[in-house]
Amino acid sequence: MQEIYLDNAATTRPLVSIRGVLEKYLEDGWHNPSALYAPAVFDLRKMDEARETLKKGFGGNLFEVLFTGSGTEGDAAVILGGARKQKSMHYISSEVEHPAVYQAMMRLKEAGHEVTFVKPDRQGRIDPDAVADAVREDTVLVSIMHVNNQTGAVSDIAGIARRVKAKNRNALFHSDGVQAYMRKALGDASDIDYYTVSAHKIHGLKGVGAVFYKKGAPLKALIPGGGQEKNLRSGTENTLGIAAFAHAAENYLEQKQEYAGRLKELKEVFLGEAGSLSDMEVLSPADGADHIVCLLINGVRGEVLLHALEEQKIYISTGAACTSKKGISRAALGLGLSRAEADAVVRVSFCPYNTKEETAAAAQSLAQAAGALRLFTRR
Amino acid sequence: MQEIYLDNAATTRPLVSIRGVLEKYLEDGWHNPSALYAPAVFDLRKMDEARETLKKGFGGNLFEVLFTGSGTEGDAAVILGGARKQKSMHYISSEVEHPAVYQAMMRLKEAGHEVTFVKPDRQGRIDPDAVADAVREDTVLVSIMHVNNQTGAVSDIAGIARRVKAKNRNALFHSDGVQAYMRKALGDASDIDYYTVSAHKIHGLKGVGAVFYKKGAPLKALIPGGGQEKNLRSGTENTLGIAAFAHAAENYLEQKQEYAGRLKELKEVFLGEAGSLSDMEVLSPADGADHIVCLLINGVRGEVLLHALEEQKIYISTGAACTSKKGISRAALGLGLSRAEADAVVRVSFCPYNTKEETAAAAQSLAQAAGALRLFTRR
Repeated sequence: MQEIYLDNAATTRPLVSIRGVLEKYLEDGWHNPSALYAPAVFDLRKMDEARETLKKGFGGNLFEVLFTGSGTEGDAAVILGGARKQKSMHYISSEVEHPAVYQAMMRLKEAGHEVTFVKPDRQGRIDPDAVADAVREDTVLVSIMHVNNQTGAVSDIAGIARRVKAKNRNALFHSDGVQAYMRKALGDASDIDYYTVSAHKIHGLKGVGAVFYKKGAPLKALIPGGGQEKNLRSGTENTLGIAAFAHAAENYLEQKQEYAGRLKELKEVFLGEAGSLSDMEVLSPADGADHIVCLLINGVRGEVLLHALEEQKIYISTGAACTSKKGISRAALGLGLSRAEADAVVRVSFCPYNTKEETAAAAQSLAQAAGALRLFTRR
Repeated sequence: MQEIYLDNAATTRPLVSIRGVLEKYLEDGWHNPSALYAPAVFDLRKMDEARETLKKGFGGNLFEVLFTGSGTEGDAAVILGGARKQKSMHYISSEVEHPAVYQAMMRLKEAGHEVTFVKPDRQGRIDPDAVADAVREDTVLVSIMHVNNQTGAVSDIAGIARRVKAKNRNALFHSDGVQAYMRKALGDASDIDYYTVSAHKIHGLKGVGAVFYKKGAPLKALIPGGGQEKNLRSGTENTLGIAAFAHAAENYLEQKQEYAGRLKELKEVFLGEAGSLSDMEVLSPADGADHIVCLLINGVRGEVLLHALEEQKIYISTGAACTSKKGISRAALGLGLSRAEADAVVRVSFCPYNTKEETAAAAQSLAQAAGALRLFTRR
């Protein structure tokens, strides 16, 4: 039985061509970039080339690139590192942020800051008015994700950032772009101060992420020490992971149009096949990101459905895998679903290497399995 | 010209057999360990197996293993995460700690805590009496490195920890074991609470480290979010780096005796050949770790010597590469050297894959180059 992997919002299959990146690393890329001799200086230069490559996927020369150990660390670097204030201040985020942002905001709250969590609609869409309305004179930072990891809802973060700055020009704007990077274009990024991305969501390796930050935007190392990364993140640099990140970004950049077309097709195929299922609500907005389909299948526990499909080597997710096995996802509740509804959510997510055939087959299996489970539970 | 790499305290050449680890990862090890289906659960189990492997190299079942993104992050996780207190308290460390520990302690100082930095002798040795004497009733944490990264001086950390606890049983003891792990055995680790290690110092990959922590020792995530690593470090786990770490640890464990013998030989060969150099002081203690030789070559700037050897593809370090190109190393000054002396320090560091022949050749080249530079500068 061939595996059908439809959990690409959790992680993507690494490119097999990363073999070549490892070969280069083993040959001549493994020195400590902080050392003073030529091969080390070469490794440092390679890191800077990787930054340039990544910037082609977001914001261009408006931004600098800080490498981190994950998207989560990137979010923490901004919220708990750069934007954290001593004095009690005000922060804004949403109820459906990734736990990386949400928990960082909770840390600020515990430390005595005030945090406004804007409520999304049932499909995870954030009302730009609600964000703008929440901005105050003492608002330090607004953090709104670009593409929702659960429903695929897309926020016009460039527009939201503009409105935030119009109301308080000193407020900083951050967006978790982990699901969006390379998948969703952005207009004018000039009001965005920070943008977080992760390598393993675009077929790179786990253990490496990055923060795009506007020149001059405040940042303070979460991890002090030897002063690597312009003293913003100490520790010997993960040069293999960084090279593989650049490699994956290049691969995506070269085929961006084609990949976008493929994802759109896969979503259509999936929804076409799964649409036959009765008493089912598509939580993904029609204009959402094409790689995520979120379904609320009334009367079927998502986790049970997941395991039924697992028997057929079809891998999908419940509410949000990123919440690491903690039962019902806070983010699913953040959509305003009841507990029973949140429990009935599954997420299917594609990558450009999924085929239409496997996607159609998975959708049929899902519809069948859900139907069977309903019969069973209603009997 | 064959490269002679003698900067193994900065980083080690990764095992080429990591190719096999990548192959397994590409095949079936890349799922998100937080997901609920079988392949992901398998990846999570592999991480736990890696923890067991690593524990064979330190402390065994007394300890739990937390994976981090670097040794530096491990130090920060303990000092700024686990042991940090709200109320002003007292901490102890030394003047020659790695910047990861030193800068974390400086953060505590900035936050209003008191930090006692014990002074080492000229060879980097820490007097256990001086540490014990500094312990007070309000001492929260004592952090003393196991093997000094500059001179190779070894501290009896088990003994120091015992004395610390004898004076204040509530004080916690941490040691940066990055240079020591797999190289220096430890007696009874039962008074040690935390021990930090790094994969790329034992021929693993960069971007992954670990903290061994005693069951029940306080830890708090530096990076909050999805709750991975028992909620001690959020972010998708670097499963490739972790597998390669375990692979490198297994390799070291299998050949520990042989490797130790080899390092001892290399040190003897090197000192035998370089010993002819006049007006030179070996800063490494006779009973220090065998993989590090630190020389003070009066009248020769370390950086100039480094570049002279670089011409011959012989790679060594000045004071300490980990301080990332910031000129004279704080740690070199921490030894109590004058600025001129600190400037004249070079560090040569071995791995078990260095040959006696290349080590002898490098020592001869170093002696010749240093002699020539002296002639030049004294003319």
